[in-house]
Amino acid sequence: MSGDADLGLIGLAVMGQNLILNMADHGYKVVAHNRTLSKVDRFLENEAKGKNIEGAWSIEELCKKLKKPRKIMLLVQAGRAVDQFIEAILPYLEQGDIIIDGGNSHFPDSNRRTKYLAEKGIRFVGTGVSGGEEGARYGPSLMPGGNEEAWPYIKDIFQAIAAKSDDEPCCDWVGDEGAGHYVKIVHNGIEYGDMQLISEACLVSSSFYEHRLIFEIGDAFAKWNKGVLDSFLIEISRDVLYYKDEDGTPLVEKILDSAGQKGTGKWTAINALDLGMPVTLIGEAVFARCLSSLKAERGRAAKVLTGPTPKFEGNKAEFLENLEQALYASKIISYAQGFMLMQSAAKDYGWKLNKPSIALMWRGGCIIRSVFLKDITAAYRGNPDLENLLYDDFFNKAIHTAQPGWRDVVSKGALWGIPTPAFSTALSFYDGYRSKDLPANLLQAQRDYFGAHTFRIKPECASEKMPDGADIHVNWTGKGGNVSASTYQA
Amino acid sequence: MSGDADLGLIGLAVMGQNLILNMADHGYKVVAHNRTLSKVDRFLENEAKGKNIEGAWSIEELCKKLKKPRKIMLLVQAGRAVDQFIEAILPYLEQGDIIIDGGNSHFPDSNRRTKYLAEKGIRFVGTGVSGGEEGARYGPSLMPGGNEEAWPYIKDIFQAIAAKSDDEPCCDWVGDEGAGHYVKIVHNGIEYGDMQLISEACLVSSSFYEHRLIFEIGDAFAKWNKGVLDSFLIEISRDVLYYKDEDGTPLVEKILDSAGQKGTGKWTAINALDLGMPVTLIGEAVFARCLSSLKAERGRAAKVLTGPTPKFEGNKAEFLENLEQALYASKIISYAQGFMLMQSAAKDYGWKLNKPSIALMWRGGCIIRSVFLKDITAAYRGNPDLENLLYDDFFNKAIHTAQPGWRDVVSKGALWGIPTPAFSTALSFYDGYRSKDLPANLLQAQRDYFGAHTFRIKPECASEKMPDGADIHVNWTGKGGNVSASTYQA
Repeated sequence: MSGDADLGLIGLAVMGQNLILNMADHGYKVVAHNRTLSKVDRFLENEAKGKNIEGAWSIEELCKKLKKPRKIMLLVQAGRAVDQFIEAILPYLEQGDIIIDGGNSHFPDSNRRTKYLAEKGIRFVGTGVSGGEEGARYGPSLMPGGNEEAWPYIKDIFQAIAAKSDDEPCCDWVGDEGAGHYVKIVHNGIEYGDMQLISEACLVSSSFYEHRLIFEIGDAFAKWNKGVLDSFLIEISRDVLYYKDEDGTPLVEKILDSAGQKGTGKWTAINALDLGMPVTLIGEAVFARCLSSLKAERGRAAKVLTGPTPKFEGNKAEFLENLEQALYASKIISYAQGFMLMQSAAKDYGWKLNKPSIALMWRGGCIIRSVFLKDITAAYRGNPDLENLLYDDFFNKAIHTAQPGWRDVVSKGALWGIPTPAFSTALSFYDGYRSKDLPANLLQAQRDYFGAHTFRIKPECASEKMPDGADIHVNWTGKGGNVSASTYQA
Repeated sequence: MSGDADLGLIGLAVMGQNLILNMADHGYKVVAHNRTLSKVDRFLENEAKGKNIEGAWSIEELCKKLKKPRKIMLLVQAGRAVDQFIEAILPYLEQGDIIIDGGNSHFPDSNRRTKYLAEKGIRFVGTGVSGGEEGARYGPSLMPGGNEEAWPYIKDIFQAIAAKSDDEPCCDWVGDEGAGHYVKIVHNGIEYGDMQLISEACLVSSSFYEHRLIFEIGDAFAKWNKGVLDSFLIEISRDVLYYKDEDGTPLVEKILDSAGQKGTGKWTAINALDLGMPVTLIGEAVFARCLSSLKAERGRAAKVLTGPTPKFEGNKAEFLENLEQALYASKIISYAQGFMLMQSAAKDYGWKLNKPSIALMWRGGCIIRSVFLKDITAAYRGNPDLENLLYDDFFNKAIHTAQPGWRDVVSKGALWGIPTPAFSTALSFYDGYRSKDLPANLLQAQRDYFGAHTFRIKPECASEKMPDGADIHVNWTGKGGNVSASTYQA
């Protein structure tokens, strides 16, 4: 038995409710279900009232009300709840039906679920959903991946409700298995990075503004939001910095500076370590949150550890421009690293990832939406095989232009005693990445010295005695043991 | 049936062979076994000849030749091989016998094995072994953990073969379950950090030495090895920098600058992310290896990405002293972070970790052995509950003395275009750690703005309307949805 509804959605927290309302606004008939049934009643009597939305008080009822192939979307807590609902739904499904997980699931779980359900003839989609409550209601960024057979059936509804950027929907098929959730965690990691960069810009500028003049920093953000940094996060930072508490002082100054980090930003950093990709900026952003959460310990440390007193000399307006460049250049590095990571993941996991589409998906609807992502979309559309964002003419020029200001800010941060872990790591990455030769040769020599780990020779230095590609061991001291026979002895 | 041998060792690669020879030198009778039996013959006929070492050509034979309680040590590849040998040995063991895993196992595996074997009445020990082949042969650093009931039976032999530092053995009981292997991975992470710091020092100094004068950098290392940096890694770096190839040029310059990183350094960084501890220096060290391994891509990047040309002006000797201070201060930060991590792990995993003993175990025998670790041992012996190394008078004074030089090096690196990710992150950590207030308040405001994640108020800013400890949400724009009812609405 089947009904006439376009999609069933389980999980009526704010995200789920808002997605349903969004779908209804676009002419789709949605059936709403929730484990706690009273939530279904409450939703139908309030937000859903007068809209093309039905309720279902059991999973059986939900499935009966849906057109075939059935499309059921889960907006429930990541982890066990997703598996439990999948098992609860399965008895009521038929071959070809579609289960969509729109929660913050970790991508290995989505890999597993895609395979598991494919064996049963059910098509699984794991989709990243970004944009918070507001995005879910009026246009989120959607990053669906999984079983590609499902895409033709959900494409219209997904692209209808998604945010639009220059009339293009911020939603496209990402790739196989957990690719959609994977791209979402990289998005979140980048979001961590963007937020950390903004925090550092704020901290550096406060070195020459009095704290009571934090509104002036708001002015700087307002100005930046009209240039290359034009973005949602800069915009809301401006609003936050301008926001006065009842006593007329900036509310932000009263907020406890201790940030959580148990989520997806951490996953991105761990994945980068697993894949061996130097995604340093997200790593530092996650660690910066960890450090912020040691609030009490920092209070004790502040009493026994001293540093210089920042002395700003020079032109403030000029320095603010340098700061804008530092933020911009560091952001370019962060996104370049993020795309390096996704490129490496695609190779390792056997996915085809569509880079121009990913940039477009992030262009609107989500937290990191920005003018910047329009430029990234353009770069990858111009050359989908672009090895690195830094090789694109636009970004290549941008980072070279930004360099002097960026270096000025990082060096002053070090001299003034202002922590700039993300600005600094971005600059170190840039300088390392553009180094044909790095001191890892010393490191390899050390490893061979103490552990006979062997080394290779630079191709241009190869000789008959030390050929290119051979694993070479040298007896650095004349002492020490033998190495295994499989090792080349120079 | 039992025999008269003190210990059986399985796995006759270099590490296993050298540990056996070391034990024999100290008067212990050891039985040697290996999966490939020809290795047993070869070992007995060569290295073991004339020593108090027997062979066993089956596990049954090995077990029969041992005194009770039997002590069997595995030096086999981490992972499945360890489990397979445990299963193979079990049928020949009796209650109270001891299995010791001396490989590079990951600590969760050792947690599991401790519990699994305890249920069978077998005592499991997972021990970190550091010092490479040379250490294994003449005195390694040993970090045993697991089932503490085993310790009285292995203590004498372990402490006899371990390295000695000021006449104290570099081996003591670390803690429950996988604590020994855990401390070993932190050791390895710190080793990654130390090596990265040395590489950066080498790179910065090469900015004003001609490359053909790399021997001069060797001179700097030789000098540093007589001061606060006196350590095995500085010593071998000196040797490496001095080492001439047959054509009289430094061999190190010919070595391919691409370092591997699939091992335990990565585990430390991932564990830090999991525990939420800002172990930034090890993180950057691992990522620096990742970047080094992108050798071909760096070659291409070098052609399209430019930077400043370092121009050294000033007194070289003075700058080299600043560099020594930068290296020293960064190293203090790295060890402070490492001990913060272990403290957090002990709390999370329910282990008691003996901090003075850990410092002592690393003091000799292992790769990171140094004068520095003597000072750390003294700090923790003086105050075993020391919250942070930076609070100890000695290190507090040291880092304050080092600051000006450290800041000079980091700022110059940024201006000169020399990547110093580890020096920089150490400095940013120092400046962040000593900051009572960090800009994470802006970050928390952003999170509340876009996701209604709520924030807390600084205790000193608490009011009736915004009480201390409450989860507060503000409607930053006057738009936006409602938040869940459980949230405090300011």
